[in-house]
Amino acid sequence: MRILGIDPGLAIVGFALIDVEGNNYKPVDYGIIETYSTEDLPTRLSKIYNSMITIIDIYKPDEVAIEELFFNKNVKTAIEVGHARGVEVLACKNAGLEIYEYTPLQVKQSITGYGRATKKQMQETVKNLLNLKDIPKPDDAADALAISIIHASSLRFKDMYKMR
Amino acid sequence: MRILGIDPGLAIVGFALIDVEGNNYKPVDYGIIETYSTEDLPTRLSKIYNSMITIIDIYKPDEVAIEELFFNKNVKTAIEVGHARGVEVLACKNAGLEIYEYTPLQVKQSITGYGRATKKQMQETVKNLLNLKDIPKPDDAADALAISIIHASSLRFKDMYKMR
Repeated sequence: MRILGIDPGLAIVGFALIDVEGNNYKPVDYGIIETYSTEDLPTRLSKIYNSMITIIDIYKPDEVAIEELFFNKNVKTAIEVGHARGVEVLACKNAGLEIYEYTPLQVKQSITGYGRATKKQMQETVKNLLNLKDIPKPDDAADALAISIIHASSLRFKDMYKMR
Repeated sequence: MRILGIDPGLAIVGFALIDVEGNNYKPVDYGIIETYSTEDLPTRLSKIYNSMITIIDIYKPDEVAIEELFFNKNVKTAIEVGHARGVEVLACKNAGLEIYEYTPLQVKQSITGYGRATKKQMQETVKNLLNLKDIPKPDDAADALAISIIHASSLRFKDMYKMR
């Protein structure tokens, strides 16, 4: 079973692919899609969509896990990142994939067993779970790995996390 | 010159097509795309995307005008509608169209000359400008007509309203 993890965003989208066999998690690839504020929004959305389609086409994941957005103040930013996440979800749906979603808190708690873990602690745990030599970089790719891991570890209960 | 006007949304997307020749505006078609809260979000986004592509394919507009989202409180709703608008923008971009955007206030002021006009006054003006027998329905389609009219009347200054 191959899982695509997505840390949604407009300027930076983190993505990660892991293979799961029982309790064994093997990283396949991870990285980021970048867009620039010098480009107009339609161009940025189109780049993200095309990059997502390419990644799915190359790695053929079985399922997708994407983080929920959490904003408590800046509505303008929330709307903008919402545009990008909409396009990310559409790319997965158009590729015929089932989509699952997890809150930032669920990811933290599942990975480190502790909702107030630091970013550093999260990344250290991701590194150990995947037997990586170094902490995966950049942060957004590490987050995408964490999201794919939480989905891998939730497979028995995954219906709870299906995107509605 | 044919303009596609869009009143963005997730449950209801208003769309309208008008032909413009000088100061003459002729309505071509208008209506809504509907999705239901019983469907999951990926399905709703995919429906909106496919419907938009079909509308563009049938009517072959030259340019698109879409309303900006305005929310001052509910961030959750803002994010959700942001997802839908992202997909609406993507469909237009993928069809090769230039996209322009206007705030709700700009639409009101341009159509009625008065920023505090009521919905009813707006719709009455749209009806008169397009020589329609009745007020166009539903509201979201009337709003989409208003957005296409403001773009038609702003063509000389349209660079100001290009989506960035």
